[in-house]
Amino acid sequence: MFPYQNKDLTIRERVNDLISRMTLQEKIGQVNQHLYGWQSYYKDSSGINLTNKFKNHVNWGQGLGALYGLFRADPWSKKNYDNGIRANESAHLANMIQSYVISKSRLGIPTLIVEEMPHGHQALDSVTYPTNIGKGNTFDPELLQKSAELQAEELQLKGGNLALVSSLDLLKDPRWGRSEETFGESPYLTGSYTKAIIDGFQGDLISDTNFLDEKVSKNARKHVGVVIKHLIGQGEALGGHNSGTVPMGQREFLEVYGPLIPSLKKAVGVMAAYNDIDGVPCHANRNLLDNLLRKKDGFQGIVMADGTALDRLVDLYSNYSESVFAALNAGVDLSLWDDVYMHIGDAIEKYPQLLLDLNNSVKRVLSIKFLLGLFDDPYVDEDDTNIEEVIHESNDLNLELSSESITLVKNGVPSDKSSSILPLKKGTKLAVIGPHVKNIYHWLGDYTAPQLNSQYISFIGSLREYTSDITYAKGSNIREVAQDKKLINDAVNISSNADAVVLTMGGSSMRNFDMSFLNNGAMSDESILKNTDTGENVDVASLSLGGNQIDLLKALKKTGKPIIVVMIQGRPYDITEIMQLADAVLLAWYPGQQGPKAVSNILFGKTNPNGKLPISYPRNAEQLPVYYYQRRVLKNENYFDETGSPLLRFGYGLSYAFFDYKNLKVNYKDNIARVSVDVKNISNQDGKETILLFSSFFGTDVLPRQKQLMDYKKVFLEPNQIKTIHFKIESDRLLYVDKDMQRKKPKKVKLSVKELSGLIEL
Amino acid sequence: MFPYQNKDLTIRERVNDLISRMTLQEKIGQVNQHLYGWQSYYKDSSGINLTNKFKNHVNWGQGLGALYGLFRADPWSKKNYDNGIRANESAHLANMIQSYVISKSRLGIPTLIVEEMPHGHQALDSVTYPTNIGKGNTFDPELLQKSAELQAEELQLKGGNLALVSSLDLLKDPRWGRSEETFGESPYLTGSYTKAIIDGFQGDLISDTNFLDEKVSKNARKHVGVVIKHLIGQGEALGGHNSGTVPMGQREFLEVYGPLIPSLKKAVGVMAAYNDIDGVPCHANRNLLDNLLRKKDGFQGIVMADGTALDRLVDLYSNYSESVFAALNAGVDLSLWDDVYMHIGDAIEKYPQLLLDLNNSVKRVLSIKFLLGLFDDPYVDEDDTNIEEVIHESNDLNLELSSESITLVKNGVPSDKSSSILPLKKGTKLAVIGPHVKNIYHWLGDYTAPQLNSQYISFIGSLREYTSDITYAKGSNIREVAQDKKLINDAVNISSNADAVVLTMGGSSMRNFDMSFLNNGAMSDESILKNTDTGENVDVASLSLGGNQIDLLKALKKTGKPIIVVMIQGRPYDITEIMQLADAVLLAWYPGQQGPKAVSNILFGKTNPNGKLPISYPRNAEQLPVYYYQRRVLKNENYFDETGSPLLRFGYGLSYAFFDYKNLKVNYKDNIARVSVDVKNISNQDGKETILLFSSFFGTDVLPRQKQLMDYKKVFLEPNQIKTIHFKIESDRLLYVDKDMQRKKPKKVKLSVKELSGLIEL
Repeated sequence: MFPYQNKDLTIRERVNDLISRMTLQEKIGQVNQHLYGWQSYYKDSSGINLTNKFKNHVNWGQGLGALYGLFRADPWSKKNYDNGIRANESAHLANMIQSYVISKSRLGIPTLIVEEMPHGHQALDSVTYPTNIGKGNTFDPELLQKSAELQAEELQLKGGNLALVSSLDLLKDPRWGRSEETFGESPYLTGSYTKAIIDGFQGDLISDTNFLDEKVSKNARKHVGVVIKHLIGQGEALGGHNSGTVPMGQREFLEVYGPLIPSLKKAVGVMAAYNDIDGVPCHANRNLLDNLLRKKDGFQGIVMADGTALDRLVDLYSNYSESVFAALNAGVDLSLWDDVYMHIGDAIEKYPQLLLDLNNSVKRVLSIKFLLGLFDDPYVDEDDTNIEEVIHESNDLNLELSSESITLVKNGVPSDKSSSILPLKKGTKLAVIGPHVKNIYHWLGDYTAPQLNSQYISFIGSLREYTSDITYAKGSNIREVAQDKKLINDAVNISSNADAVVLTMGGSSMRNFDMSFLNNGAMSDESILKNTDTGENVDVASLSLGGNQIDLLKALKKTGKPIIVVMIQGRPYDITEIMQLADAVLLAWYPGQQGPKAVSNILFGKTNPNGKLPISYPRNAEQLPVYYYQRRVLKNENYFDETGSPLLRFGYGLSYAFFDYKNLKVNYKDNIARVSVDVKNISNQDGKETILLFSSFFGTDVLPRQKQLMDYKKVFLEPNQIKTIHFKIESDRLLYVDKDMQRKKPKKVKLSVKELSGLIEL
Repeated sequence: MFPYQNKDLTIRERVNDLISRMTLQEKIGQVNQHLYGWQSYYKDSSGINLTNKFKNHVNWGQGLGALYGLFRADPWSKKNYDNGIRANESAHLANMIQSYVISKSRLGIPTLIVEEMPHGHQALDSVTYPTNIGKGNTFDPELLQKSAELQAEELQLKGGNLALVSSLDLLKDPRWGRSEETFGESPYLTGSYTKAIIDGFQGDLISDTNFLDEKVSKNARKHVGVVIKHLIGQGEALGGHNSGTVPMGQREFLEVYGPLIPSLKKAVGVMAAYNDIDGVPCHANRNLLDNLLRKKDGFQGIVMADGTALDRLVDLYSNYSESVFAALNAGVDLSLWDDVYMHIGDAIEKYPQLLLDLNNSVKRVLSIKFLLGLFDDPYVDEDDTNIEEVIHESNDLNLELSSESITLVKNGVPSDKSSSILPLKKGTKLAVIGPHVKNIYHWLGDYTAPQLNSQYISFIGSLREYTSDITYAKGSNIREVAQDKKLINDAVNISSNADAVVLTMGGSSMRNFDMSFLNNGAMSDESILKNTDTGENVDVASLSLGGNQIDLLKALKKTGKPIIVVMIQGRPYDITEIMQLADAVLLAWYPGQQGPKAVSNILFGKTNPNGKLPISYPRNAEQLPVYYYQRRVLKNENYFDETGSPLLRFGYGLSYAFFDYKNLKVNYKDNIARVSVDVKNISNQDGKETILLFSSFFGTDVLPRQKQLMDYKKVFLEPNQIKTIHFKIESDRLLYVDKDMQRKKPKKVKLSVKELSGLIEL
């Protein structure tokens, strides 16, 4: 037995021993994640088999660093219920893979099985949660943590090791197609969610200590790791272009993104972002990946490249060796689909000092494999029936998450509570209209696997729980302009006979199996786009709704029936007219498999909506950007032709209950700011309310920001119940980045909750 | 006689002697430019008198540092031909001012008379040139220089000393109301114009040597100085908001704006910009004003504050003393209308070390007064009749400048030269339509003085030179929606009887005497805006044309008559539909007093248009930004719903002649890149062509830019004439800012002219 096989040694000792025995090619193999995982197997009458492509690659690397997307099923991978891996087959395939890799690795090094889990596992039979933009509305990191725990369990049972989860991008330009993958615009909210996701996926896998100094935990194999994406700034590319350039300044970076990086501390991995920051590609940014992430903020995990991102460096550096140098020296530990890291050998011949960087990366990859127990216990139980239980449990949580992700933004005339349209009475005669109604894929967002009917209840099916009198018309396509008059006429006709109209509007990130894709899985713009208008690589110039959706709404308005609009969307569309014409408006985002049921429950009052907007909701693309933490300058906020303020402010959201805020108290002592405020439910029904605490700085030597979210708390209140909400802000969060790029106290801070505020002196 | 009065001493010796004799209050007086100059006098039956306000302020400062806008006449100052200063009265008033100031200054220090000259002197009787955005189209710095020479002569004859000229702002977001004050988006073009303007205004006033070591020149008093505005970055505020925040990175700054700063080297002054850069207000940016501008790039002049900009610092620093500290220590030498520099005394009590900064600023202000000969010869000849000659000569040059500033972007069907609509035949029966036709103010831009009918020839008057058969209808308002059907019907009616329709469309920066203004002269948004939609503080969200202009065009299109659209505009409006519907399109910008004549000459072929676009002309506000020198990333340029490319590329512009490019040759030797290309006039008429040389870098360690303008040459070619154009680029211009913020050579550079290109290795 070699020392690296000795469970009684620390991970550091085992890694050091193992790497000392490895050849250069074995090392190179460990930092490559070249394959599309779904190309590693095929099914035939004999069952599941490994492909030669897979075997040849293992042979090339004398083992296998990591395997991306083994279980991935979607139009890009062309894997579906005919040819893909079912949940109950996954553990078997994972074991086949591990067994093969270990057998072909001279030193018996297992691989990492890496899966997309942006809002559930992108695999057959899996739970599809709301997309992040919806989760942003919940202000409920505990719920996200629970969902991450269940997803981790699901992945672990299937034999997966690393979950890729979007969590870091900020929505600063909603033209960006990946807006739906963000938790909104707030750095603080995003940071708190990121921590919850890491805690949920990983549990106690990594603590505050250095895990290299510990032995592999006995229950290590029950864990998975999470790889948080993307580091960093991708949501503010110029023009909202996917992987566009980010000419952001260092002070802006330190203030907006700086506080996000420590939230990654306990993650097993992070994925570098496609974009540059002020010209420097994140994949070649040693200051970001090494100085800030690792040295300053104590991150212990691996940095993974984004798909083919390293190949893009070749365009910059003109050759492979220099591209290897840039990325490996910057601290990118593991490739993704690129050719660049296949050329590490050549690069080291040219730049021998790179061997040190390679060793560091190999050690990090190996340390993660030890940490996850893969050396000591590489296989999972193939007969474990828990997977169905986990999925069942996840469905319940998914409904809760979906319900909390929906934000009510209009309910009757704003000034008149008695004019509320929602909730509807049971038995209301409904005309249900909209392009989303009968197609579950429109509700799910990008990065979604093929669905079985058994995985969800349709919107009409969900509504039938409350009323049997439902008629349906499509009314409009999402984008396509075809048969519009007939579609609108049919919708008007059924509405005339209804008590109320429920109309879905919005967009879709649905992918089709006849689409074509780029080599990083993003939808090719030569593909058939028709009714898909969000998701990766689907950036838009206009935030206007597609198709004849607005015309449909106008036609329905003429029927005089109450109209309830349910926005199904992955980005904020221009809803200015909808807010005028509709009697009630729910923003449901892409609410996932339980979305139709969650919306139905809200419409009929079984659930009281409590979502709050995680973005400053813009009126249109012409007034961008409108995020709330821009620097406070003496400018005219308004344009000559249009207001400059967003349509709806960050944190906006209605409920069927009403809340009153009183008695804000603020003090600052012993380097802690304390805020308390009384919140009372002044309605006659239960409700949840999220209380948001903002700060504004005064007395700084650079321009301060308009405001910043400092904390938030979500509470449940019965009618007439009052709760006193307490916030505690440590002084190290009351800092700005000064003229000399140092963190510094402002002289005064205004702390505010709704319209109440108090001033403290620091 | 004191040494400072001795003409045989150097300026340094005289300044040092003088300052050694000054009291603190006298010094403070020298760095204040507090008054609105037009409030210094009033006219009554006895003639021109000085106000008590003026006298009291001189008393406060024990002299007067500088006086802004003594001759200014416009709706803000409420000065017009009834109560303002005529050109032939100016010298007299200047002398009154100087005489009073000198008499009240213990040491006899004269003042600086500072005037707005953004496109001609903003004073009665003066020449109004095209706004900068139009001048950007000329690619003719020699013409700009000549115009600056004439303006300098005009100002000098009037007794003015410093001309304020917008020159540095880049048009990166055309939502900005001050777009018209920019020369477009190109740093190189802007830098070359800035040098021409300084040379034109100042002549040999400042050379490469340090003027402090020289004696005052004998003809010093024949010179004026120019204050170039604004330093820097104001054209890329977030959202296009005036004085909005600029979260730009240091590398972006060094690459885009860095090369502009040396162009200021010989200027007598620069004005700091309202905006911040990455949080640091330009008025408190010591690195910008002292390290870069003065120490690195050798600027010897004064830094002037923008109007009330220092008062905005009080909002930041909470009190006057710290605001004084920030600005004075950063290197702001002279205030503008603010209260902050009135509080320098208090600030020095609090921060005694500030006295050093004050002394430096006072020395700089005094040195400029010596340099301009004001100590030795403070008065101007009041009986000089040259002023009328200068204005006459300027009018001729203005016509030339205006003609060259107009860009033809459509002339018939693009693929068919024989389909050209322009030039028109003499005697063509014209329907002349548009809201600009009968109102000269719409043609002039912001910062414009009241006009006399004798100062210009109206559009219809100008057209009558070519055809007597002209009918007119207004057709539409610029923004106001009123009487639209009648206006359109009238226009259609007259068009039906015409051979061709000439239609002005666009916007206006006209100010009215019943408007209200902010304390910095920007139009208040509470003012009556109606038909004004550009200029300072008039930012827009949408680039769509106002009023019913597009409806009018559509109605006219139905008449079947050829339609020639003349765009009168201070920013690029969305002309996508116009380019489809109109048969010919001229972009005339705000072409100044000679604009109507210049347009007429082009329409009838007396002038062959040769303007080229100094911007990447956007389709609309939704696709912004589209400037051509964004970093080259592997992004999808196009949006899902719209192309991402601009409607017209930077440098685009047609002529009645046609040109062919051949034989591009490129080589690199002795640190110089040489490019030559043959350009031939392949038409049967004379024409001018501007040849643009672009570079693209390859082999860099940060993302390179798509392309950069390296040089341009404008040539005149007779039919069939071929000229070989030579460019010479020194290697110090073939640098980018690398990972470590150092200037570095790329490995390869592609040099291109139109579609021709060659590669050099460095």
